[in-house]
Amino acid sequence: MDLIVVMKASATADDVQRVVDRVAELGLVPHPSKGEFRTIIGAIGEKSPETQDQLEQLPGVDEVMVITQPYKLASREFHEADTILDIKGIRVGGPHVNIIAGPCAIESREILFEVGRAVKDAGASILRGGAFKPRSSPYSFQGRGREGLELLKEAGAELEMPTITEVVDPRDVEVVYEYADMFQIGARNMQNFNLLLEVGKTDKPVFIKRGLAATISDLLMSAEYVLSQGNHRVIMCERGIRTFSEEVRFTLDISAVPVLQERSHLPVFIDPSHAAGKRDLVPALALAGIAAGAAGAIVEVHSCPDRALCDGPQAVLPGNFVTLMQQIRQVAEIVGHRVTLWGREETQPRRPVTGGWAT
Amino acid sequence: MDLIVVMKASATADDVQRVVDRVAELGLVPHPSKGEFRTIIGAIGEKSPETQDQLEQLPGVDEVMVITQPYKLASREFHEADTILDIKGIRVGGPHVNIIAGPCAIESREILFEVGRAVKDAGASILRGGAFKPRSSPYSFQGRGREGLELLKEAGAELEMPTITEVVDPRDVEVVYEYADMFQIGARNMQNFNLLLEVGKTDKPVFIKRGLAATISDLLMSAEYVLSQGNHRVIMCERGIRTFSEEVRFTLDISAVPVLQERSHLPVFIDPSHAAGKRDLVPALALAGIAAGAAGAIVEVHSCPDRALCDGPQAVLPGNFVTLMQQIRQVAEIVGHRVTLWGREETQPRRPVTGGWAT
Amino acid sequence: MDLIVVMKASATADDVQRVVDRVAELGLVPHPSKGEFRTIIGAIGEKSPETQDQLEQLPGVDEVMVITQPYKLASREFHEADTILDIKGIRVGGPHVNIIAGPCAIESREILFEVGRAVKDAGASILRGGAFKPRSSPYSFQGRGREGLELLKEAGAELEMPTITEVVDPRDVEVVYEYADMFQIGARNMQNFNLLLEVGKTDKPVFIKRGLAATISDLLMSAEYVLSQGNHRVIMCERGIRTFSEEVRFTLDISAVPVLQERSHLPVFIDPSHAAGKRDLVPALALAGIAAGAAGAIVEVHSCPDRALCDGPQAVLPGNFVTLMQQIRQVAEIVGHRVTLWGREETQPRRPVTGGWAT
Amino acid sequence: MDLIVVMKASATADDVQRVVDRVAELGLVPHPSKGEFRTIIGAIGEKSPETQDQLEQLPGVDEVMVITQPYKLASREFHEADTILDIKGIRVGGPHVNIIAGPCAIESREILFEVGRAVKDAGASILRGGAFKPRSSPYSFQGRGREGLELLKEAGAELEMPTITEVVDPRDVEVVYEYADMFQIGARNMQNFNLLLEVGKTDKPVFIKRGLAATISDLLMSAEYVLSQGNHRVIMCERGIRTFSEEVRFTLDISAVPVLQERSHLPVFIDPSHAAGKRDLVPALALAGIAAGAAGAIVEVHSCPDRALCDGPQAVLPGNFVTLMQQIRQVAEIVGHRVTLWGREETQPRRPVTGGWAT
Repeated sequence: MDLIVVMKASATADDVQRVVDRVAELGLVPHPSKGEFRTIIGAIGEKSPETQDQLEQLPGVDEVMVITQPYKLASREFHEADTILDIKGIRVGGPHVNIIAGPCAIESREILFEVGRAVKDAGASILRGGAFKPRSSPYSFQGRGREGLELLKEAGAELEMPTITEVVDPRDVEVVYEYADMFQIGARNMQNFNLLLEVGKTDKPVFIKRGLAATISDLLMSAEYVLSQGNHRVIMCERGIRTFSEEVRFTLDISAVPVLQERSHLPVFIDPSHAAGKRDLVPALALAGIAAGAAGAIVEVHSCPDRALCDGPQAVLPGNFVTLMQQIRQVAEIVGHRVTLWGREETQPRRPVTGGWAT
Repeated sequence: MDLIVVMKASATADDVQRVVDRVAELGLVPHPSKGEFRTIIGAIGEKSPETQDQLEQLPGVDEVMVITQPYKLASREFHEADTILDIKGIRVGGPHVNIIAGPCAIESREILFEVGRAVKDAGASILRGGAFKPRSSPYSFQGRGREGLELLKEAGAELEMPTITEVVDPRDVEVVYEYADMFQIGARNMQNFNLLLEVGKTDKPVFIKRGLAATISDLLMSAEYVLSQGNHRVIMCERGIRTFSEEVRFTLDISAVPVLQERSHLPVFIDPSHAAGKRDLVPALALAGIAAGAAGAIVEVHSCPDRALCDGPQAVLPGNFVTLMQQIRQVAEIVGHRVTLWGREETQPRRPVTGGWAT
Repeated sequence: MDLIVVMKASATADDVQRVVDRVAELGLVPHPSKGEFRTIIGAIGEKSPETQDQLEQLPGVDEVMVITQPYKLASREFHEADTILDIKGIRVGGPHVNIIAGPCAIESREILFEVGRAVKDAGASILRGGAFKPRSSPYSFQGRGREGLELLKEAGAELEMPTITEVVDPRDVEVVYEYADMFQIGARNMQNFNLLLEVGKTDKPVFIKRGLAATISDLLMSAEYVLSQGNHRVIMCERGIRTFSEEVRFTLDISAVPVLQERSHLPVFIDPSHAAGKRDLVPALALAGIAAGAAGAIVEVHSCPDRALCDGPQAVLPGNFVTLMQQIRQVAEIVGHRVTLWGREETQPRRPVTGGWAT
Repeated sequence: MDLIVVMKASATADDVQRVVDRVAELGLVPHPSKGEFRTIIGAIGEKSPETQDQLEQLPGVDEVMVITQPYKLASREFHEADTILDIKGIRVGGPHVNIIAGPCAIESREILFEVGRAVKDAGASILRGGAFKPRSSPYSFQGRGREGLELLKEAGAELEMPTITEVVDPRDVEVVYEYADMFQIGARNMQNFNLLLEVGKTDKPVFIKRGLAATISDLLMSAEYVLSQGNHRVIMCERGIRTFSEEVRFTLDISAVPVLQERSHLPVFIDPSHAAGKRDLVPALALAGIAAGAAGAIVEVHSCPDRALCDGPQAVLPGNFVTLMQQIRQVAEIVGHRVTLWGREETQPRRPVTGGWAT
């Protein structure tokens, strides 16, 4: 039964009949059932997304409840096992824990390589760096664009790390595809549906951050947009929601980690840096996320954060990142996970490592 | 004084000196002042948006407060009088109250013209209709695109009403410019900065809806994006924010109306339809908005909402819209406003009416 | 049908049978119905509040939906007509609009009488004043207690206005009963259930403010606590909820007015003062509330607010209150309401005025 | 400097002078400083909580910022080292991690003892059980009152565990003091200030849960209420806040753990059970809290949750609690903490164990 129409206590027999008729007209099978106070009508069959809205407006209808989830390809009901991605030999999802790290924005060749080297040595497996920066002020640094992408590609090749960078405009999908290994969809673009459709037409992994006001279902529907175009390589990331709490930039919704994993087979990451907004809080949030079962974290690291052009206050120093990685590895093991390092698992690899770099 | 750096109680004299030096290095004039528990350092001068982030990370710093607002062109400090737009002879803003009405999506020629005629007769001055629909499900009706735009243009010409339609992709700005009189930026795209930049380069009015999780400052910064490109014809619209309240679709933040009007010279509208999510609540919210001083409302009207392909439950029926318009006119007058009808003011026009249609 | 148990897609026939058996054991009649993907089981009959929780835990159960509302006496389903209270001859609810006004706290005899006289002359029908002040800081002014109550009673008698004051402690219900005509339950005590039970045992009207994080159902359940004890004289008040919005103290949830009125027969007021937190915003919010159909507003007025000991910034000056009352009267009429003044309706009384003061 | 008064850009020299005079009149030392656009005035000295409100209302004032926190005794500025409580020999706070466990409500002697034995064996150090239950419905089970307290005391004595139970009414403080070892103040009573004052006058530890809409500062102010009465034995507990997220009962604000620990010396716990609302999520949230550095967790355990009279769906089964305790111990060690068991530390006790039971 896909839909349940709850009639008002005051609904007449005619109202009920009208709903029954309309349900049938919509191609669904109606199942009316008279209760103590109210009648409810089940409606079985394949419905269109508009069905609920239309039935809700019939006279005497109080509420229409949807039983099956609006997402399908993202749902664990349709794909029970964890999806494990292979990104240039790095396995992401399932028992594998990966840390994506790097500077917020690509500012200079020097800083990118310095930070990249440091995070790789500490155990990060994927390199991040922003070339197109969505900024709330038109007067803020907006990123170095294609020039930044070139530096990122170079750094990825030299450090033998897959790279990820944000894409904010459907017109940039092609150039980002050319230079980076993964697309990042930022929180502000989580419901930029045309952008989701464009990256959905490619074959590179898409890392979708939850919007500031997005529900779990909204996030799953955004993943569904990408999946619906044939690109099944999707990662979802909790990065903090907007609440009344003023003490941090955003409230990291730690419950989203187990809830998403229960509903979907896709890997779930957390972003402790943007949630915290200040580096002192990053380790606590990162460890909390891994303890809650996340498949990884994306962490901003900067060697000289008080001169960074973007989000410096939340960037962790390379030295502290080393300590954090050690704790992450220990916590991951307690919850039955294992950190993936440099394209290999840390100790006994449970699979032959072919790597993605030799090819 | 543009910035105030508050030192921690535990900050040393060296910490204070380091901040003073850095403030000077950033081109600002430092003004240290020792308090009972803490020292604060004022910093006067033209700062870049990164300054606050950078100072916050120096040792001993507790907090950096920004005194001047990050938006300038949108601010009432820089432009005291209300901005009044002239949209094909229709005056928007200041004492003029305008109602934008029409169907959510452009579904068919017949419905668009039927609803358009009805809302014009009832007193609406601008015609709305969606051709590109951002939908949370990839399986929902996505709008009729260019074909819808053609119908909208035709309807506007026949009814002699300016038209407004949503644009969701920077690649569509050109085609929407060709067919419609105003750009609508939807809530989900309020921080699609590239889209804002594109419409900012045109000379047609931009109607920006507040995002579900956007603060008042965020909304003003999005207006600033458009203004910064030279397009000064911007309207802001409160359409409901996401809160814990589950009884309506979104919580109409009625306080945003007077707060925005205090901070900015730009006209402020409200959208009672999307906030309510059901038509029974639309009149109460629309009247509340006008009573709170809004320069207008955007209302969805449909002649056959239980067969609408999009947002039917919140569409008002044409008959009820007539009653609502009468009440809106009365409430507007109480708060010193006056409803603009068909390019003319209702009763005694306080200005010569030249109209926009004869030219 | 009171409950609907939705089984998981993976539920076995045994799981279904177990739920059916348990429903029967709980004294309800089970109605299983097999859908395309899932089975649902309706459960008809009188349930205890624990039933839902218990059924949700059975194996194979995905969700248990409750169809009938948890509140009964407060619900419009059980009492269709608007409740109209008679408070010393003042009619509250239905078409009657009443403004409660006065200082936040009772500070001195002089200010209370001065403000009381001013608000009565302007048209307020009920006098407010706090004697027990719940303050977030233990170091703030906490109110004058019994001494304040004595002043309030004296002022009410002299001005011939019913009085309302907040009660925060079950131990104070008796003394407040003795001195005031109405109990106010503040937002922070909306779920102080023992306090609700105590005022529910009296026969004086109870004015319940919505909590900062209370849903509409929570508020109705708090009203239900009072009603369940036999006191049917309850008024509910929307006073702003806590959201991410930082520009006002609380976000006035204007939609709560029509939603509460749809669900309940009890009068609904708004509190523009606490929502706004600053006086400049009070008129816009007050008018919005009346335009949305509220049965009244509670407004803080102070003759010398910059020396007030509590919430001065939100107190309206007596002169501005006169203007506000005039606008409130006009807006009330547009939405079919009528402001009640001094125990009488303003112009043509539709009922014989017996008054409460002569008796 | 305690306060900063920011003048509007439009403020006149007279406005500035008026503020300067008023600051002096209030006993503070004014420090005016003229900036590029605005003047700001620092105000040094001991201020009353009303000062900010009063200054904000003077002509030309834009905003008044408070530099020093409104809480003092709870602040780490005034008490740098972690407070470590000794509760009948159990050390709480600092490096000690304690798990409080037991049934939500005390339903029967049998279940209380069965669950108590199980949680003690698994490593919990404090026994919880509710005798007075605040329920949103007046028709729900309200707890067994004094009878429940007697059972709790008996169980604590037999199991040699300190006990904690909720108090909801100032009139019950005496009886709860007699029977239990710790007071719990529930989320709905966090700002029941008279209740806080009453427990503040006792010498038993007070465990304060954060309210659904309470900021970090609100929680610290509630702690301050207790501390201000001379009772310095306070624990604060994050238990989930109300946000738009519908997938869990409340959103566990994991960031509150490090933020509270940075601001205050008092121990910080988390409550994964009430935040989750369903048992499957409890382990993830509990481990996240410990990983984030919490001094402990309060967990609901029930041997037969699908027949529990209160909050059954979130109660963990005794068997799963054993596993959870093992993981908690491991995670605690990674972050430098150590779980306290049965009044003793687990392995090498760093202090002589005298116990609290022999005395």
